[in-house]
Amino acid sequence: MNRKELIQQIYEKRSFLCVGLDSDPKLMPKCPIFDMHDPIFEFNRMIIDATAPYCVAYKPNLAFYEAYGVKGMVSFEKTIHYLKENYPQHFIIADAKRGDIGNTSAMYARTFFQEYNIDSVTVAPYMGKDSVSPFLEYEGKWVILLALTSNKGSQDFQLVTLSSTDGDTGAGIQKCRLFERVILKSQEWGNEENMMYVVGATQGRMFENIRRIAPMHFLLVPGVGAQGGSLEEVCRYGMIPDECGLLVNSSRGIIYASDGADFAEAAAEKARELQQQMDALLK
Amino acid sequence: MNRKELIQQIYEKRSFLCVGLDSDPKLMPKCPIFDMHDPIFEFNRMIIDATAPYCVAYKPNLAFYEAYGVKGMVSFEKTIHYLKENYPQHFIIADAKRGDIGNTSAMYARTFFQEYNIDSVTVAPYMGKDSVSPFLEYEGKWVILLALTSNKGSQDFQLVTLSSTDGDTGAGIQKCRLFERVILKSQEWGNEENMMYVVGATQGRMFENIRRIAPMHFLLVPGVGAQGGSLEEVCRYGMIPDECGLLVNSSRGIIYASDGADFAEAAAEKARELQQQMDALLK
Repeated sequence: MNRKELIQQIYEKRSFLCVGLDSDPKLMPKCPIFDMHDPIFEFNRMIIDATAPYCVAYKPNLAFYEAYGVKGMVSFEKTIHYLKENYPQHFIIADAKRGDIGNTSAMYARTFFQEYNIDSVTVAPYMGKDSVSPFLEYEGKWVILLALTSNKGSQDFQLVTLSSTDGDTGAGIQKCRLFERVILKSQEWGNEENMMYVVGATQGRMFENIRRIAPMHFLLVPGVGAQGGSLEEVCRYGMIPDECGLLVNSSRGIIYASDGADFAEAAAEKARELQQQMDALLK
Repeated sequence: MNRKELIQQIYEKRSFLCVGLDSDPKLMPKCPIFDMHDPIFEFNRMIIDATAPYCVAYKPNLAFYEAYGVKGMVSFEKTIHYLKENYPQHFIIADAKRGDIGNTSAMYARTFFQEYNIDSVTVAPYMGKDSVSPFLEYEGKWVILLALTSNKGSQDFQLVTLSSTDGDTGAGIQKCRLFERVILKSQEWGNEENMMYVVGATQGRMFENIRRIAPMHFLLVPGVGAQGGSLEEVCRYGMIPDECGLLVNSSRGIIYASDGADFAEAAAEKARELQQQMDALLK
């Protein structure tokens, strides 16, 4: 899915919601349906059917599937297949946070873009250009690069200030921090048609700084809901007029909205609430 | 496997070689045996049997298994099982370069340490403390944290210099670079009994700097062989007297030493050559 089509979906559905499929059998409701053969897939299928009208994207996090070995990866494959078959207009994000030396990143790119034919994959920037570039070679696919994440550990490295030499951004920022260098440097490798950035909703005013150096890139924003970020603040400082430029993710807040047999209805209700807030914020 | 046992293995076998199982069907020799049901596993099995006398560790890189979806993960599981069954004295590294917010990293840790019962996993530091800590909660297991990698892209972020405030190491280093901060900061989370660092063999003299701030940590050193790093240089600056402190990895240089039916013998010969050089370097 390209940028134009994504924006079109957002304005048609009046939603920039991404539902995170962090489906953990330990947190899934105790429900007779999960005594079935593949509980993770069954859970996902019901969550997807319930929330699809209110969101434009789904984001399974690989950790939750890999944790169950081969069986978990079967659930992952079935989920992707189900989405592509039944909801081809929804953007899919493989939240994998991969990144390795060139020839190895090329294998990861092939996995997600060719083997699974997923729209996008999250990538960690630490290893630099040749760890990211192989993902950018697929037409119509996206790299979503970690920039400023939603967790407390974002302070350890992402927020360190660079020396005046290495921190010279040429972008009117006097003191460049690592995440800003990641955003600036990576614009030499990709562009707003094939690269997004992860910026945590918990980072509030930081969105203002980020829009100064990445005015047109889509941002994938986790951290609304369970992690405590504010949707209004994200939109106030991060939204691109007429193009939105945001995909706001909620995982646990939606998929575990109820721990009873009504979990799918509860998920739909939470997703609908967020969609209505987004409708208002889209102006 | 704990630090003492690893050191013991190294001095018993007179080797600190790690064989990287980056097994790519496209690069594997054209050989009748690979028309079998699971060519990746068959290739690994033959490489392992041939090289086991000359190495102390194996490092399958997950990218090469995930690229074949569920089928690839079956090959991975079978390889791990084969190693644990037949070579329980060999240290196993899951080269996965994972890292995510706390609850998600916990799932990855569970995957590698519980589901697969692997000794260690490579972890990317970008997301900071809570992305690394969950891996440190498993007794007898290791985090191998990316510090200064072997690829060209290591220059993009790992080598940027921090401002005097954020770069103050208190370790006699005047200008701290990002990879040095990663090494110093992470020592607040783990220690030389449960944490190693990835430092590329291509980084030469940098090992001197690294030993100043991590004198006792094991270093996992890729980049000897296909990537051009020098074993002598790595040992001159990086070796810990009487404890070695190094695991030097070669992947393509060993497993693809021959593209004929003699690939396993050729791999053994390459591994033996490296082992003999290591024997001399261990004094």
